[in-house]
Amino acid sequence: MELHFLGTGAGVPSKQRNVSALALRFLEDEGDVWLFDCGEATQHQLLYSPLSLSKITKILMSHVHGDHLFGLPGLLSTRSFQGAASPLTIYAPPGVEEFVRVSLKVTKTTLRYPLEFVTLRAGSLFETPHHEVEVLPLAHTIQSYAFKVTEKEKPGRLDIARLQAEGVPAGPLYAQLKRGETVQLTDGRVLSGQAFVGEPIRGRVIVIAGDTKPIPEMVDFASGADLLVHEATFASDCEADAHQFGHSTVADACRLAKHAHVKQLILTHISSRYVREPSVFLDEVEAHLPTALVARDLFVYSLAKRGGSVGD
Amino acid sequence: MELHFLGTGAGVPSKQRNVSALALRFLEDEGDVWLFDCGEATQHQLLYSPLSLSKITKILMSHVHGDHLFGLPGLLSTRSFQGAASPLTIYAPPGVEEFVRVSLKVTKTTLRYPLEFVTLRAGSLFETPHHEVEVLPLAHTIQSYAFKVTEKEKPGRLDIARLQAEGVPAGPLYAQLKRGETVQLTDGRVLSGQAFVGEPIRGRVIVIAGDTKPIPEMVDFASGADLLVHEATFASDCEADAHQFGHSTVADACRLAKHAHVKQLILTHISSRYVREPSVFLDEVEAHLPTALVARDLFVYSLAKRGGSVGD
Repeated sequence: MELHFLGTGAGVPSKQRNVSALALRFLEDEGDVWLFDCGEATQHQLLYSPLSLSKITKILMSHVHGDHLFGLPGLLSTRSFQGAASPLTIYAPPGVEEFVRVSLKVTKTTLRYPLEFVTLRAGSLFETPHHEVEVLPLAHTIQSYAFKVTEKEKPGRLDIARLQAEGVPAGPLYAQLKRGETVQLTDGRVLSGQAFVGEPIRGRVIVIAGDTKPIPEMVDFASGADLLVHEATFASDCEADAHQFGHSTVADACRLAKHAHVKQLILTHISSRYVREPSVFLDEVEAHLPTALVARDLFVYSLAKRGGSVGD
Repeated sequence: MELHFLGTGAGVPSKQRNVSALALRFLEDEGDVWLFDCGEATQHQLLYSPLSLSKITKILMSHVHGDHLFGLPGLLSTRSFQGAASPLTIYAPPGVEEFVRVSLKVTKTTLRYPLEFVTLRAGSLFETPHHEVEVLPLAHTIQSYAFKVTEKEKPGRLDIARLQAEGVPAGPLYAQLKRGETVQLTDGRVLSGQAFVGEPIRGRVIVIAGDTKPIPEMVDFASGADLLVHEATFASDCEADAHQFGHSTVADACRLAKHAHVKQLILTHISSRYVREPSVFLDEVEAHLPTALVARDLFVYSLAKRGGSVGD
């Protein structure tokens, strides 16, 4: 899985950072892309990425503020103009559907692909053959949400070296054994797959949070995640403002990542005030969690392969 | 007056051309800016121009297609976020107000400045102390309009050299004479201002057309204009498609400019198909009207000073 940070700024676009959007690309599942938020000019940012609009099959909206939303009508229209026919589902708080429907209506735009809206709710949101998605309400000036994408467990690895050492010939039998089935060899031996298959391989967990001030519920929600993408609109020089306006500081996000034992924290949604004084922001990262990464526009983060296996 | 071409592409953004927006900056009138259309990421383009959002006092929308409209909510919100308090009026066909109101409502955005909508209609649209604006309906797939901005006449120049030759002392008298008043000098002579003031100085005329196929009414509307900004979505290799979808070719726009005796034609709203083959487009300009300019993003065109006078 890859994360493509398309917009990493807060509130208004700047030359350095566009407003919010983040694409999650699955290297399995035919390269499907899920888009998290869609600030204005997200389709422009995609022109500078390897991602195509037709591959975007789901859009998950954390909340209904303009800097996370206003790129949606243009992106949906261009996806149609480019000939995409694959269905698209938008998971969003109330308001997004009305905004999109009115945008399409007044511009007399007919999309060439099916567009479906699903209203966000806390808890389990949907699952696919390979993933589950859960939602946690956050604390912002309007209702905002975090998403947890969990890969489903994969069966453990088959111990091929041991099978070969025991003289079990390679072939369709191996697939049966990998599924844990019991098989009989031509020499009469009966083998249980469970004896040759390792522990199930745990799926990776990614948590992507919308705008929020720190809340204790996030510690459980992000517990043990492989990756946490969290806003750090401000550094602690603006802590009071941050919390008053429903935002987090660098220190808040780092504390959460440490308490939840997440393996990697990436900070995003960064105020343009730190363009002039980046050291205030970066020093705080260094002081609290030096391994945290500070996203920049068009930054691509590739998750470590799960269980050390080859593949996605 | 200066024209800042913020987006010169058609339909969808590309790396070379953003979707439509054009700013007209008045060097008098405190540097007011009028924006013609507002495609997505117009506020982003403004970051690379010398224009500020607070100076935009009027937005004139040629028609309600997404590539001319979807930048409006973000631009209006950022204008407020930056603290602009000056009123803003949007002149637009029906649909734009609903789109903007819903955008602001669902994002719970309260603008800090007064925002007014005026529905476009054919004929005289509004006037300011220095300008008049007229509107002509065009022929596109939906109702589209052209705008004519006409500077009001200025009083003719006072012939200072002749006044001095006749021994008229400089002073407040000169202002009275310039206004055409009759004055009496201390030596008893009576002078009529009209004898010392030249012909009124004609105002400049700018015509900015929205998307349209060629229509004969534009010849009168643009007659004698100092500047005509016209779409040339296609070259003549796509003439049938152009006209079917309510667009013009290079040849169409050049023919109009010649028939209407406009002093300068600028072509814009150019399909991205000519990124790969610009010669098809440029050769047609050369063949039909070599003085025409082909706009590019962030191109600034300064109008010649009117009547050769110093000033705007």
